[in-house]
Amino acid sequence: MMLPFHFARIPNIIFGAGTLAELYKLISQLGNKVLLVIGGSSLKDSGKLDEIERNLQDKNLTYWIVSVPSEPSPEIIDTHAQEFREKEVDVVVGIGGGSVTDAGKAISAMIPQEDSITNYLEGVGTKTHNGEKIPYIAVPTTSGTGSEATKNAVISEIGPDGFKKSLRHDNLVPDYALVDAELMISCPPDITAACGMDAFTQLLEAYTSTAASPMTDALAISGLKYMKNNIVPACTDKANNINVRIALAYGSLLSGICLANAGLGIIHGLASPIGGFFDIPHGVVCGTLLAAATKMNVEKLKAQGPKGMLGLKKYADVGAMFAGKEAIFEKDLIKYSTILVDTLEVWTDTLHIDPLGIYGITAKDVNKIVDHASLKNNPVPLGKEDIKKIVLSRL
Amino acid sequence: MMLPFHFARIPNIIFGAGTLAELYKLISQLGNKVLLVIGGSSLKDSGKLDEIERNLQDKNLTYWIVSVPSEPSPEIIDTHAQEFREKEVDVVVGIGGGSVTDAGKAISAMIPQEDSITNYLEGVGTKTHNGEKIPYIAVPTTSGTGSEATKNAVISEIGPDGFKKSLRHDNLVPDYALVDAELMISCPPDITAACGMDAFTQLLEAYTSTAASPMTDALAISGLKYMKNNIVPACTDKANNINVRIALAYGSLLSGICLANAGLGIIHGLASPIGGFFDIPHGVVCGTLLAAATKMNVEKLKAQGPKGMLGLKKYADVGAMFAGKEAIFEKDLIKYSTILVDTLEVWTDTLHIDPLGIYGITAKDVNKIVDHASLKNNPVPLGKEDIKKIVLSRL
Repeated sequence: MMLPFHFARIPNIIFGAGTLAELYKLISQLGNKVLLVIGGSSLKDSGKLDEIERNLQDKNLTYWIVSVPSEPSPEIIDTHAQEFREKEVDVVVGIGGGSVTDAGKAISAMIPQEDSITNYLEGVGTKTHNGEKIPYIAVPTTSGTGSEATKNAVISEIGPDGFKKSLRHDNLVPDYALVDAELMISCPPDITAACGMDAFTQLLEAYTSTAASPMTDALAISGLKYMKNNIVPACTDKANNINVRIALAYGSLLSGICLANAGLGIIHGLASPIGGFFDIPHGVVCGTLLAAATKMNVEKLKAQGPKGMLGLKKYADVGAMFAGKEAIFEKDLIKYSTILVDTLEVWTDTLHIDPLGIYGITAKDVNKIVDHASLKNNPVPLGKEDIKKIVLSRL
Repeated sequence: MMLPFHFARIPNIIFGAGTLAELYKLISQLGNKVLLVIGGSSLKDSGKLDEIERNLQDKNLTYWIVSVPSEPSPEIIDTHAQEFREKEVDVVVGIGGGSVTDAGKAISAMIPQEDSITNYLEGVGTKTHNGEKIPYIAVPTTSGTGSEATKNAVISEIGPDGFKKSLRHDNLVPDYALVDAELMISCPPDITAACGMDAFTQLLEAYTSTAASPMTDALAISGLKYMKNNIVPACTDKANNINVRIALAYGSLLSGICLANAGLGIIHGLASPIGGFFDIPHGVVCGTLLAAATKMNVEKLKAQGPKGMLGLKKYADVGAMFAGKEAIFEKDLIKYSTILVDTLEVWTDTLHIDPLGIYGITAKDVNKIVDHASLKNNPVPLGKEDIKKIVLSRL
């Protein structure tokens, strides 16, 4: 029995090595005044920013550049939205990691409003965004958040009263996701690892989600297949291999589509408070919790007996993929879900994913984190003690 | 090596048994003046039209109903578009088979224009549609064309100078595809068979297309998995089983997404002239050619030797699915692609798919048909004699 499901719009996708060359034609179709949102210095350092500017000038396009060098706060979005309200921007282009593509998305959505983004953030403000925005093109330079395909932008206020909350509306799905794996070649190993683990987590959490549909399942499995053999090479000896980078870019894009339509689980349910209270990259939180949380979920599903079989089957599917098996039998569910957990533990070591303690998180912070955590669409219920155990194991 | 690909927007999808109940809220979000495009009498006969009208009245929505009882001609679209140009329609809803959902799509796109649709049809007119349209909700009542997810509307002029050509623009993807399998329960066996074969053909042609991407592959395989065990039951002893109808509706929806993004092959390349020159349902053309054309493609790929392996592998994947195998070895490619061809031949018999002769097509028509046929993205080149052989085998 297939349960009813909703599947939201996805962006127009332009995917593949070298597709950045298509950006200027796209922009021209949408207008001639462009706001470029970029991150810190990496786009400049790689020479790509100069190339982009030359092309914009050649096309006689008017452009402004704003830099968002860290995870975007409400203040940053408000400042830039305010600055461009009078400038009649035709199109916003966000080129960078997940923070930048989220910042571009939020700025494109806040230019047509008149007040602060804080009013519209889920769980923070009281207003609902009306979906009005400036057309938006997302150009990711990391294979991580999948923000190029999602309808939300994560906004962070870091500190003791901090939060990571979303501005969300179906219309905020970017008009175009232009995914050029050549832009990812220069991404350093630590960021490649953290982003890759985030994307993998999103695919795995969406695939095992209680809100998964056959459509999200098909796309999640396709993304996992491409990512599984390429995360470690991309962070080690194959960082410059374009096919490796294409595989991760594909997995990341699909992770965005899947999370937007199937939701996520406890890892992202923990990433929100951890990232709000502490200054720690989102990909590191996901990467560091991935194996531990998956192990906990598998244990809890096993303990459920027959009721947990369907959830366990999902983890076993992915484990079987790692083992090179496509068809699995019920008797092998535990074997293959164990292979998955073991593989993720090896990845955590091989990729040197930081434990949480490096970012100043201690045992005394764990209760507060757990109190603010959400299960989201985790495939099995977890109690506070279970969640605490996951976090403690990664301090 | 993953080649670059484009993947267009898809509609907001609302899928599942009973989802028709969500239609009225959707309409209200878009406005209060609704143009309903329906087919012949089946929606009325099933009692669903009365139910829909009651609900529209309860919501105080203004509505008009137009009926398009056959495959839409340019004249039909022009007449209805003209009629509603002054009426400030807020939303068009097309409820019916593929002809109706295409007609609704075309009317929603032609109301904002001032001239005839003929001017905008590919290969017929000289103008390019600008993408402007009235918001459009597609509600299929058959599991066939996948029109609820595509960016084109097929318009037919039947006769010696006839054609079946598309109005096409990325913006013509319906804003919403509302797919309620309960609406399909009353579809009679012959129409269920023809539509099911059309959807299956679309999935298979998109999966084996030279323009397929990993994304379309993942979705095509998911659609094929659900369709493979349900087409025959839906036309025989399980016509009233909602799970069987859901599976076909799912496959049909995904066939639309896949064809829009991967293209099709020789079967649809023949369906265009055959359907233009003769009054024959599109699903029958596809269904009757499916086994014969697949057999020809498999033979030609085999004859290519190593070069044809990749194409043959695609057919073998689907054959292996029928045989209950997920992983296949190179040595089994011929075995499993033969299983596929054999299965499709059995379906053609079991489902009593009409040969072309029933619709007045004779051997002397074949050259003209073949001259107007297109290979589209067929996985292997075919000569005129090969194409002729396919058609002759199904007279």
